[in-house]
Amino acid sequence: MRGAVLYGPKDIRFDERPDPKIVAATDAIIRLSATCVCGSDLWPYRGVDRSSEPTPMGHEYCGIVEEVGSAVRNLRRGQFVVGSFFASDNTCEICQAGYHSRCVHHEYVGAGGAQAPFLRVPLADGTLVPTRELPSKALVPSLLAASDVLGTGWFAATAAAVGPGKTVAVVGDGAVGLCAVIAAKQLGAERIIAMSRHPSRQKLALEFGATDIVTERGDEGVARIKEMTRGLGAHSVIEAVGSSEAMMQAIRCTRPGGHVGFVGVPHGADFPGQDVFFAEVHLHGGPAPVRRFLPELIDLICDGKIDPGKVFDLTLPLSEVAEGYRAMDERRAIKTLFTV
Amino acid sequence: MRGAVLYGPKDIRFDERPDPKIVAATDAIIRLSATCVCGSDLWPYRGVDRSSEPTPMGHEYCGIVEEVGSAVRNLRRGQFVVGSFFASDNTCEICQAGYHSRCVHHEYVGAGGAQAPFLRVPLADGTLVPTRELPSKALVPSLLAASDVLGTGWFAATAAAVGPGKTVAVVGDGAVGLCAVIAAKQLGAERIIAMSRHPSRQKLALEFGATDIVTERGDEGVARIKEMTRGLGAHSVIEAVGSSEAMMQAIRCTRPGGHVGFVGVPHGADFPGQDVFFAEVHLHGGPAPVRRFLPELIDLICDGKIDPGKVFDLTLPLSEVAEGYRAMDERRAIKTLFTV
Repeated sequence: MRGAVLYGPKDIRFDERPDPKIVAATDAIIRLSATCVCGSDLWPYRGVDRSSEPTPMGHEYCGIVEEVGSAVRNLRRGQFVVGSFFASDNTCEICQAGYHSRCVHHEYVGAGGAQAPFLRVPLADGTLVPTRELPSKALVPSLLAASDVLGTGWFAATAAAVGPGKTVAVVGDGAVGLCAVIAAKQLGAERIIAMSRHPSRQKLALEFGATDIVTERGDEGVARIKEMTRGLGAHSVIEAVGSSEAMMQAIRCTRPGGHVGFVGVPHGADFPGQDVFFAEVHLHGGPAPVRRFLPELIDLICDGKIDPGKVFDLTLPLSEVAEGYRAMDERRAIKTLFTV
Repeated sequence: MRGAVLYGPKDIRFDERPDPKIVAATDAIIRLSATCVCGSDLWPYRGVDRSSEPTPMGHEYCGIVEEVGSAVRNLRRGQFVVGSFFASDNTCEICQAGYHSRCVHHEYVGAGGAQAPFLRVPLADGTLVPTRELPSKALVPSLLAASDVLGTGWFAATAAAVGPGKTVAVVGDGAVGLCAVIAAKQLGAERIIAMSRHPSRQKLALEFGATDIVTERGDEGVARIKEMTRGLGAHSVIEAVGSSEAMMQAIRCTRPGGHVGFVGVPHGADFPGQDVFFAEVHLHGGPAPVRRFLPELIDLICDGKIDPGKVFDLTLPLSEVAEGYRAMDERRAIKTLFTV
């Protein structure tokens, strides 16, 4: 088969790769219905995370079960499934507590490179969630979003303790930040402030349920949020960038006793101890345990209640993978979907 | 009157100071029954926090109301009261949410220097909690502990989501860490692991309810906690030191999805972003909103259910303030109480 392989900074190719095979009896092979580029794929693409080997790319996926290993009990060939970037057994004590991304048996599914027509998924019974019936083609982008950006935005909103009556601020207007707006709306937030200076992303944020847009950032952004909240700060703030600046902006936008949910992967970002201490906020984040939310997210999507697929504003065949990455790197696209 | 004044590193004197007076109509003046040295007083004592001016010291207090301002409604001369190091109005939205230490009108009571016979307490109605009756002399050390170390340990345990069935680890065997053991016990923890290598502190931890002692620290300490928790880590970990090492030890002792309550004031401690991100724990801490817990703590003490006053293992007259600081600095004493 042919899939995306990163050879070096900004050098990504649609290249020959071996077909994935069942390795463990708990594996499944799926035929992808679509795949896409994650904001976190841009770190290695830009050369910030370096690898000396050509690396198969991609970790977001949904599609049809092609084959299952002999120990797989709950899935069968032909089912449409969605999974997360971390495989999980869904039975250990950590999974039972809702932290599937840190399952005692977790494995990175993306190691197989999901930007390809086929993918091996370990721990298939625990990892993959089937839809009730085969979804229409129109639902595929939203189901693909559930695999990572929506699940991550949902975790961020949950970590930020979003709920009825709360004022929520979202730092970061990428696909995860925008999906966090969907989550905040569904979780009953009273006011949802999207911090964005890009007209097309502002428009989508409003469509997803944002009640206010703040274009300022840094000190000015913090001052603006304080002004809008009688000087107190927001109850819940979502950080979906991963830089030091964004993290401190999020912390400083939060009222004492409030909650910050952070899902941007920190790159060179340390949190200054004294600032964090005196801010007196709750901090929670990390690689989202998307699996926890998948059954609910799939239902919301299949019932037409949310449409996170709108974050894909560029669709290309996988053969044009290089252009798909370029468009996101240059911020011409929010998120690129590849047809396979 | 004469009280403790810090002139420079390790130069603390029992010195003449002006008698405090009512400044605002919401003030009270209290006559202290006892006062003490806080672990955080050692930072300026050691010259880590520097001031160019002679500084009145101390922020832990309990005693008898001597005088109240004209706007004080709920207190009267002669009552025995306990307050926190931050004055709070107890009515604003932040206080109502339980974050009195960040009250929109908060003031640092310690600015007046509580290591003295008299102290001005701002926002007296919101700040001071009276006992039902005048306590016996034997209860004074425990009521004094409620003013800071016990309230701080209690906040740490609450921030770490301690509760029935949980395994709790406590990093730091100072008075706050030891009081966190009392809190964990009262909050129903199943297992309480005190990390300490000092025999006298281990003994007190066990007396307060610790079920296990771990003497290792750093990597070895983390490995030991993992070993004791089937490789998962503790559910709840309390950080009561304030150094980078202690904070990372606490984070690494915590299972994914678990909670770290941190109350050690960070000194030059930054939290590495990636480590915090991938640890996937909840972090909450800051200057403890002691006022939230005072009514409950006072009842537990007056009913004889807890005896946090045992953390005071050295009692001196306030005139020997220099020796009281020296003993704590050299770790000869856990905590020094001064009779006034």
